[in-house]
Amino acid sequence: MSGVRVAGVGLTHFGSHPERTGRDLFAEAALSAKEDAGVPLDDVEQLNVGNFAGPLSEGQGHLAPLLGEAAGLSCPATRYEEACASAGVAVREAVRTVRSGEADVVLAGGVERMTNHDTPEVTESLAIAADELFEVRAGVTFPAAYALMAEAYADSFGIDEADLKTDLANVASKNHDNAIPNEYAQYQRELTVEQALDAPPVAEPLGLFDCCPITDGASAVLLVSEEYAADHDLDAEVAVVGTGQGADRMALQDREHLARTPAADDAAAMAYDDAGIDADAVDVAEVHDCFTIAEVLAIESLGFYDPGEGLGAARRGETRADGDLPVNLSGGLKAKGHPVGATGGSQIAEMARILRGDHPNSDKVADAEVGVTHNAGGTVASAVVHVLEVAE
Amino acid sequence: MSGVRVAGVGLTHFGSHPERTGRDLFAEAALSAKEDAGVPLDDVEQLNVGNFAGPLSEGQGHLAPLLGEAAGLSCPATRYEEACASAGVAVREAVRTVRSGEADVVLAGGVERMTNHDTPEVTESLAIAADELFEVRAGVTFPAAYALMAEAYADSFGIDEADLKTDLANVASKNHDNAIPNEYAQYQRELTVEQALDAPPVAEPLGLFDCCPITDGASAVLLVSEEYAADHDLDAEVAVVGTGQGADRMALQDREHLARTPAADDAAAMAYDDAGIDADAVDVAEVHDCFTIAEVLAIESLGFYDPGEGLGAARRGETRADGDLPVNLSGGLKAKGHPVGATGGSQIAEMARILRGDHPNSDKVADAEVGVTHNAGGTVASAVVHVLEVAE
Repeated sequence: MSGVRVAGVGLTHFGSHPERTGRDLFAEAALSAKEDAGVPLDDVEQLNVGNFAGPLSEGQGHLAPLLGEAAGLSCPATRYEEACASAGVAVREAVRTVRSGEADVVLAGGVERMTNHDTPEVTESLAIAADELFEVRAGVTFPAAYALMAEAYADSFGIDEADLKTDLANVASKNHDNAIPNEYAQYQRELTVEQALDAPPVAEPLGLFDCCPITDGASAVLLVSEEYAADHDLDAEVAVVGTGQGADRMALQDREHLARTPAADDAAAMAYDDAGIDADAVDVAEVHDCFTIAEVLAIESLGFYDPGEGLGAARRGETRADGDLPVNLSGGLKAKGHPVGATGGSQIAEMARILRGDHPNSDKVADAEVGVTHNAGGTVASAVVHVLEVAE
Repeated sequence: MSGVRVAGVGLTHFGSHPERTGRDLFAEAALSAKEDAGVPLDDVEQLNVGNFAGPLSEGQGHLAPLLGEAAGLSCPATRYEEACASAGVAVREAVRTVRSGEADVVLAGGVERMTNHDTPEVTESLAIAADELFEVRAGVTFPAAYALMAEAYADSFGIDEADLKTDLANVASKNHDNAIPNEYAQYQRELTVEQALDAPPVAEPLGLFDCCPITDGASAVLLVSEEYAADHDLDAEVAVVGTGQGADRMALQDREHLARTPAADDAAAMAYDDAGIDADAVDVAEVHDCFTIAEVLAIESLGFYDPGEGLGAARRGETRADGDLPVNLSGGLKAKGHPVGATGGSQIAEMARILRGDHPNSDKVADAEVGVTHNAGGTVASAVVHVLEVAE
């Protein structure tokens, strides 16, 4: 079994780029990763791409060979679709492919084009990540689903509505602070707790600033075997040392508990076990905050907090950049943006930059050696967790 | 590296089942595979599913956890989309996962629900497997694309139109003959060469019976490690000994040759190399005959015929059930049917049945020991080839 190193990462700006196609965005990210790695395209043996709604947003399926062609590759290419965790599974299988020795160099990432449609159309597209028969036909949208999860959280732990909203507003405000220096982020601007609390409601108790934006963007990560990195004298000090995946019942109504995400519990346990660490070893995390409540559930699933204890973490400062366990130094989905099929790859790219020291927020976590990424699909019916480590 | 065995296979009837959902179809196939294998569901460590157009046909993405739930599984579940090769890549990654020791038991397969829409709608859905910007907007449909490939084939090798049509009609007639005893096939009925030649044109030179039908269906294959099979005393004599994948430029206009499928050449070379065999060793093949010309291109890519020589194979009887190298004993996509995202898994299931001796056509190839499957996406911008062998 070979060790797996991150040789290079590539990101487009996350934001509103309605004039750009998915292939164009992905090619930019892929070529940036190649430049960053200093690995020739001809050495890439496989391409794994995540994409969620290309058939609806661009009328384009069969994206993998098309994106490979756009990036100048001629290797086998496979598309993964796992809703908002699409790039997470694409990276996971890339890690396993390199680890097994099936390939030495795999490019993994994802892309989503979203802003070429208006918000109601995008909301409809995103709904295909929920259960069409038993949720969507009943009128569920994702803001509504996460609102139910937030209400269930408050009910379970006896939290009153005002405290719930304040704690969630602190999550949003923290992630905006982190995004300010991130040149790839959709919103490089401050959001105060007061602004978040004053925002119009989307689905009570969630307001506008509890929700991540609609975003175009692409991500790419060039993964290589330890042997390839050594043979080619690559600067690839960050290793992917753990990978895990979990699944849950699709519809909220079938879950045992609306305020728990066992798919992420399972993915985290698997990834920690794979890496030979436990949650205490983690220095920094990128988690799937599609809604502020999702970040709370994530840090509980990752074992950083007991159920009910994660809500106040941002308010207490523990998950802020200067806290004990900074979460979403990239800005998260909330402020960096959430091009759905690209997000899982972006988390790996951002974490690699953070750990190797060239992220604008790296100086906040100068001693960080272990980072975790948490990527979720739908209302966490699927989840992927990775553990990255500074290896040398 | 572990050997990989086919412990069990499951198929739904391929045909018109507009009242059945994708989850319902897949659950039937998955539970059949489980019964066939005699492996408890709790032992399944991963689910890989192929699906192509679920977001368009059922308004359902994020299918993997949903299908896992429908089949009674609680393991990680991943959706693969590679147009008509979706289940091919799902099986390929399952093979690699078992081989690497990451899991001992993986369920792989696919599902497609198509007949709940009318033919123009389905044609539009299928078009997302072509290049939206440079083919679809120019009016290309898949029958038209394959018609261009057939014309290019005839032009390249100096074949006149009447001979081309007759040879293609022989492919269709052969595959219908093979489907007659197959209880899973959409068309268990004879098609004479004359009937095929008399059919209305769809896209010249292709007539109605050169085209595969629109089909609902699902497939599942339970793959296990050799060690697991031995430890559990499973009847799993068929091994997957080779896997390969290839990619090509997406749009026909960018190809070097319209009548060649280099993605399949590459996939075949990789799979043969992986299996340690060459084309001469193959006794029987299931190939991707979405159109009759596609079977011709496939048997050339697989190395059974030189370019230009594959066209007459069915007419000459060589690929018929009583020929030297029977092709599509299942009936193929043409007569068994083509539920797009399920087809790659169906090919593996049919080949396993053929080789282990319980297929209605097994008696035609009683001594067969090596079988090949060939699954293609779009106009073969992607291709997956597997080699199966009787191991004991």
